[in-house]
Amino acid sequence: MKFTKMHGLGNDFVLIEDREEKLNLTPKQISHICHRHLGVGADGLILIQPSNKCAVKMVFYNQDGSRAAMCGNGVRCFAKYVYDHGIVQETCFSIETRAGKTNVKIIEQKNADTIVQVNMGKVDYNPSNIPMNIDKKDALDEVVYINNQEIVFSSVLVGVPHSIIEVDHLETYPVERIGRTLENHPLFPEKTNVNFIEIVNRKEVRGVTWERGVGLTLACGTGACAIAAVLKEKRRIDSPVRVHLPGGTLEINFAGEHILMTGPAEEVFTGNLS
Amino acid sequence: MKFTKMHGLGNDFVLIEDREEKLNLTPKQISHICHRHLGVGADGLILIQPSNKCAVKMVFYNQDGSRAAMCGNGVRCFAKYVYDHGIVQETCFSIETRAGKTNVKIIEQKNADTIVQVNMGKVDYNPSNIPMNIDKKDALDEVVYINNQEIVFSSVLVGVPHSIIEVDHLETYPVERIGRTLENHPLFPEKTNVNFIEIVNRKEVRGVTWERGVGLTLACGTGACAIAAVLKEKRRIDSPVRVHLPGGTLEINFAGEHILMTGPAEEVFTGNLS
Repeated sequence: MKFTKMHGLGNDFVLIEDREEKLNLTPKQISHICHRHLGVGADGLILIQPSNKCAVKMVFYNQDGSRAAMCGNGVRCFAKYVYDHGIVQETCFSIETRAGKTNVKIIEQKNADTIVQVNMGKVDYNPSNIPMNIDKKDALDEVVYINNQEIVFSSVLVGVPHSIIEVDHLETYPVERIGRTLENHPLFPEKTNVNFIEIVNRKEVRGVTWERGVGLTLACGTGACAIAAVLKEKRRIDSPVRVHLPGGTLEINFAGEHILMTGPAEEVFTGNLS
Repeated sequence: MKFTKMHGLGNDFVLIEDREEKLNLTPKQISHICHRHLGVGADGLILIQPSNKCAVKMVFYNQDGSRAAMCGNGVRCFAKYVYDHGIVQETCFSIETRAGKTNVKIIEQKNADTIVQVNMGKVDYNPSNIPMNIDKKDALDEVVYINNQEIVFSSVLVGVPHSIIEVDHLETYPVERIGRTLENHPLFPEKTNVNFIEIVNRKEVRGVTWERGVGLTLACGTGACAIAAVLKEKRRIDSPVRVHLPGGTLEINFAGEHILMTGPAEEVFTGNLS
């Protein structure tokens, strides 16, 4: 079985063409392919299928073989793949995902990277949609106490729940301890991702994401969107803003209520499973 | 650049043919290829080169790009590769390594695995060769105290220094804490690998290895040899003995003073670096 290995800011994926929708991989097979020692090794597996509604369809699986609706870094890799392989001919096209229709744009080729812009849709500030157990119109500047320490945070939904905590120094802040505790806080019936940020200036933010069920990651696409959305809402930054993550940088723009994420996607190798 | 990804009991390698010895990969390039998110991802990289002294030459690099003399799981993968690809035609052949000439034997094809036997040479019991700061003829049943706890261990050299600690229950023993402490004990000027074992019967042993500079691993080939050698010296087992590790099982035989390790090697995929 042929595949292509790609990554977006270190978030890596196995992409497999399934043009006739006949592949039927089991969760066990997917988790074996994603196993870092026994298989190809990846954070997720993406199938490329035909679509009736859009130019092409992305089917996304997590490392453990479960389905996921969307993945910001994954969709940039997917867009580069289908454009490079002539599955789509236009530089602007739509992708069918479980989270709905996603519009993407191939911006440029920069060394080994292709720069892709993804319309990530609207950010939802409604606590009951995040979901979150508070009776307010939004969840900006909420407070919890962790080991008697006051933690101020803001939460939004960008496909998945995200909370943002501004800190003085990312390098010295106890991101693992606070991340794990807020992730599992009773305020969040479906848990939350936690983004720790340091504002550099009105155009640049540094951040790191504690991903729900995963831990610290190199770069979270929806997290970067959540960071920019919350800071724009609080009038702390100007669009476009560059969000610097451990794996690299994403640029976040706003087009009306829609949030646009721009970043790289790279092909690492092509392979043939034995 | 074409490559093949293989593993032996979960210890995984990128193999690249370099028949004209022109490849000249830098340590930086090797560590990038071995990077699990940005490259192919592997514990090590192996070049296949011609040899004047043996049938073929194995050049082994660690994940960080440094050279290593030998690797028990790696040499089985190497042997399967050169046999499968017709680089050698015999089932018994010799491989030139930095640790000297290594004799291997292709035993059988078992499902996806090829079973390979490797002559791992002689075990060295001399403490000054391990190296170890004690003035004795061997280092069997030595004692150290870690947090006031008496730890009985035996050390030998199987290419690299190995220490063996027998425990009652592998699942409940603090292998990480004791492993890290003994690894860095002043007795060992070049540190030591630490193997924790539970003897099942005279033909079977369960074990787990804390590898020097790495931590707990799925399977350590030289560790399995060290375990069998120490237990044979203490007349606790009979040859051949099966050593069950988290990644699978190795069979250890003795042929005079030489130690023979038998285990599987599997090809996972072939690839082409972009």
